[in-house]
Amino acid sequence: MAARKGLTSQADDFSAWYNEIVEQAELASHAPVRGCMVIRPYGYRIWELIQGGLDGMFKATGHENAYFPLLMPKSALDREAEHVEGFAPETAIVTHAGRSGKLEEPLVIRPTSEAIIWPIVADWIQSYRDLPVLLNQWANVVRWELRTRPFLRTTEFLWQEGHTAHASSEEAQEETIRMLGVYRTFMEDWMAMPVITGEKTASERFAGALRTYACEGLMKDNKALQAGTSHHLGQNFARAFDVRYQTEDGEHEYVWSTSWGVSTRLVGALIMTHGDDAGLVLPPRLAPHQVVIVPIWKSEEQQAQVLDAAAAVRRSLEEAGVRVHLDAREGLNPGAKYYEWERRGVPLRLEIGPRDVESGSVMMVRRFVTGDAERKTPMPVADVAGRIPLLLDEMQDELLALAAERREAATARGVQTLDELAEIIDGVGGFVYSGWCGSDECETMVKERTKATIRVIPDEEYRSDPAPARCLCGEPSVHEVVWARAY
Amino acid sequence: MAARKGLTSQADDFSAWYNEIVEQAELASHAPVRGCMVIRPYGYRIWELIQGGLDGMFKATGHENAYFPLLMPKSALDREAEHVEGFAPETAIVTHAGRSGKLEEPLVIRPTSEAIIWPIVADWIQSYRDLPVLLNQWANVVRWELRTRPFLRTTEFLWQEGHTAHASSEEAQEETIRMLGVYRTFMEDWMAMPVITGEKTASERFAGALRTYACEGLMKDNKALQAGTSHHLGQNFARAFDVRYQTEDGEHEYVWSTSWGVSTRLVGALIMTHGDDAGLVLPPRLAPHQVVIVPIWKSEEQQAQVLDAAAAVRRSLEEAGVRVHLDAREGLNPGAKYYEWERRGVPLRLEIGPRDVESGSVMMVRRFVTGDAERKTPMPVADVAGRIPLLLDEMQDELLALAAERREAATARGVQTLDELAEIIDGVGGFVYSGWCGSDECETMVKERTKATIRVIPDEEYRSDPAPARCLCGEPSVHEVVWARAY
Repeated sequence: MAARKGLTSQADDFSAWYNEIVEQAELASHAPVRGCMVIRPYGYRIWELIQGGLDGMFKATGHENAYFPLLMPKSALDREAEHVEGFAPETAIVTHAGRSGKLEEPLVIRPTSEAIIWPIVADWIQSYRDLPVLLNQWANVVRWELRTRPFLRTTEFLWQEGHTAHASSEEAQEETIRMLGVYRTFMEDWMAMPVITGEKTASERFAGALRTYACEGLMKDNKALQAGTSHHLGQNFARAFDVRYQTEDGEHEYVWSTSWGVSTRLVGALIMTHGDDAGLVLPPRLAPHQVVIVPIWKSEEQQAQVLDAAAAVRRSLEEAGVRVHLDAREGLNPGAKYYEWERRGVPLRLEIGPRDVESGSVMMVRRFVTGDAERKTPMPVADVAGRIPLLLDEMQDELLALAAERREAATARGVQTLDELAEIIDGVGGFVYSGWCGSDECETMVKERTKATIRVIPDEEYRSDPAPARCLCGEPSVHEVVWARAY
Repeated sequence: MAARKGLTSQADDFSAWYNEIVEQAELASHAPVRGCMVIRPYGYRIWELIQGGLDGMFKATGHENAYFPLLMPKSALDREAEHVEGFAPETAIVTHAGRSGKLEEPLVIRPTSEAIIWPIVADWIQSYRDLPVLLNQWANVVRWELRTRPFLRTTEFLWQEGHTAHASSEEAQEETIRMLGVYRTFMEDWMAMPVITGEKTASERFAGALRTYACEGLMKDNKALQAGTSHHLGQNFARAFDVRYQTEDGEHEYVWSTSWGVSTRLVGALIMTHGDDAGLVLPPRLAPHQVVIVPIWKSEEQQAQVLDAAAAVRRSLEEAGVRVHLDAREGLNPGAKYYEWERRGVPLRLEIGPRDVESGSVMMVRRFVTGDAERKTPMPVADVAGRIPLLLDEMQDELLALAAERREAATARGVQTLDELAEIIDGVGGFVYSGWCGSDECETMVKERTKATIRVIPDEEYRSDPAPARCLCGEPSVHEVVWARAY
């Protein structure tokens, strides 16, 4: 970063703050094609760490990665009625290719891969012995969105899409819930982002699904972000693409399928869950550099001495399994480096100057502090490799606790009237719990008045006790629901 | 695999053998869109292992991953004259997208990303301090090829593309050669595939490059396979996209760029370098399962006992860092499992039956043997974790030696006339070294007569001593070259 750029404060303009962070932390830039972004190395490294964490969890739950084509014949997308209705308006269409020019049938760039995967996997499934099929794909998809924002909603994005087939609806349901749980664990343990899990209402369901479940986070501007979804697809795609298996009794039955996905949107979620007016704040488990070492020198003699000491600290941290970067750039003063790495969210900074070398210590500076902790603490070099990994773990936990506290402070329960809901939503925002009669009309009415939507019918552990008796409309409640304005 | 399928022998029909391996080892299947393939979990796992090995080497040489868009405006591709001439006939074009329908300007799906990356990265580069830029991208690309074969040439394929910018031609040249070396090391050390490295002639150069270098392997049918390329792009793309930097003296100069790539074609190279009439043969470093354990039982009592022992062996191998799979499937006899895992190229099989449990041993069976080695050897269970990692390393080396021996046997040097060359190419095939006068006409004449092309002007260590004095046409030779028919 050439010069210090100002950063709008979150309170002044959260949206401007977000866009500036994305640019100044060098996470992404705009591309010449409308709504597309370039993920820059620092942003992509965060995505690689996200991928690594999730991929391990997918493999541990028995899933295998595979790769299916980018393009499908338009007729394939058309085969599941609700699915095509949901996705056709967002697709990009290839009409010409190669020397021969115009294609006989137009091809669709995948907006999601159900309509590509099931006609192919149908041939891999003969009998109940071939089930379950547990697949995942890391891929790019294209959805022609009207309004786009880096990471949150882009025309092309990177994601993973899980696709599984089962012998019964119960097994598909178990898988749907298992993967929702994997997402929740990942978001809490790796992203330090607390989420509410639950089922979506019919109006927010995935096009073609029987039931859709989601993880919903609350960003620092008190708007919700849908961070991951898991769908029980019933037999809808099995019927559309004739995916059948022979049972133990010799019958031919359609399989039950699921799909589930998270995307580069998670990078946006990280930014808006932890960032502050000094810039990005990264949870240690997903920080490209968990520690940055900034050496301080005036003379050339000092430079050599300090760089030697800094390199030794780096080695000891590397051996302790810490991702550490030694910023030895010349022509940039230490203050500029501090500023840059705070802006880019590095959890810990170690400053080493000539006096530190003499005393065998470093100055450790935390990106954020909680409670009575000191922001700056001197630490003997001999303690660095032993203490820093533990401290990083503590900071990971602290970030989750901070975010959970913030969410609780922005949560209202037991809201009984539309006026009360509207006042909260128009005021502080956040998650608002109420009863719901179950009708689409009521949901639409609230949405039109407040721009809030039902994020989820929350899972049991999030529900209020006692449950609300009445909907905002006065009718008896059938479900408690969580309202919020959302990205 | 439901039933044992026959496998055509390599000698009878190498091409049929290849297609059958791809299907029977469950590496890939055809997709509904012409020339596209589905990479099945076993094939994709090999690709993941390839990615892991290469990615580590790219990072160790200072490269960072990033992600650039799939789509570019058609006008961007048009800006470098040779580049567009080379790639335009192979592109897929998006003309319609979203609710609004027809796009104002058609978009091209990337066939390679130079024309996407440089206009964007131009903005990241101000001065000489920002150089070198060392980027890599893992991505899918689309080239509308006329004749396609799984892994070897598909309409869509997965690859990595490195893109770097430097302050001088010398530095760009060093980078080009460094990455050629990284590829060679990977191919030899991980794939156990010996290659010849060298420069391509003008007719085989990348569209838009100053110089193209390649790694060429020799497949078991004695045809060459270009396995990786590295290009010095000069200032061609810098001029086309105005990528300039300020020098230390305050001048504005164009950068010098490189690009280099390998693709899922490497999976095809593995198949055709090591496979035999029993199926795939995988080098241990890239085998999804390095060891498969097949338990053998008759009674239920034996089953429990044998599975316990097998699980203990699996654990000890896992702890030793070996990728091991315990095939405990019921309803499939041990012979069928042996057959399947040999077909799928697993380096080592451990058989455990009731008598082995009693004697505390396993029967170890190698996928291939060299020299006097026994194919089947009993091994005490206590030795498994200690000996198998060493044995896998030995097998890795043996495979490379076997492939190098085979290549040497299929190499002819000092060929002096076109008749002699044609006789070898039409007969045994393989690599044929000769002198070359440097003229396109001579290269074309040989190609028309024999269908062989100049694979490379080989690097020094591969050259004959003394160097050939004359070209096949009788004129003085300026370079020794390597001819072969190629994929």
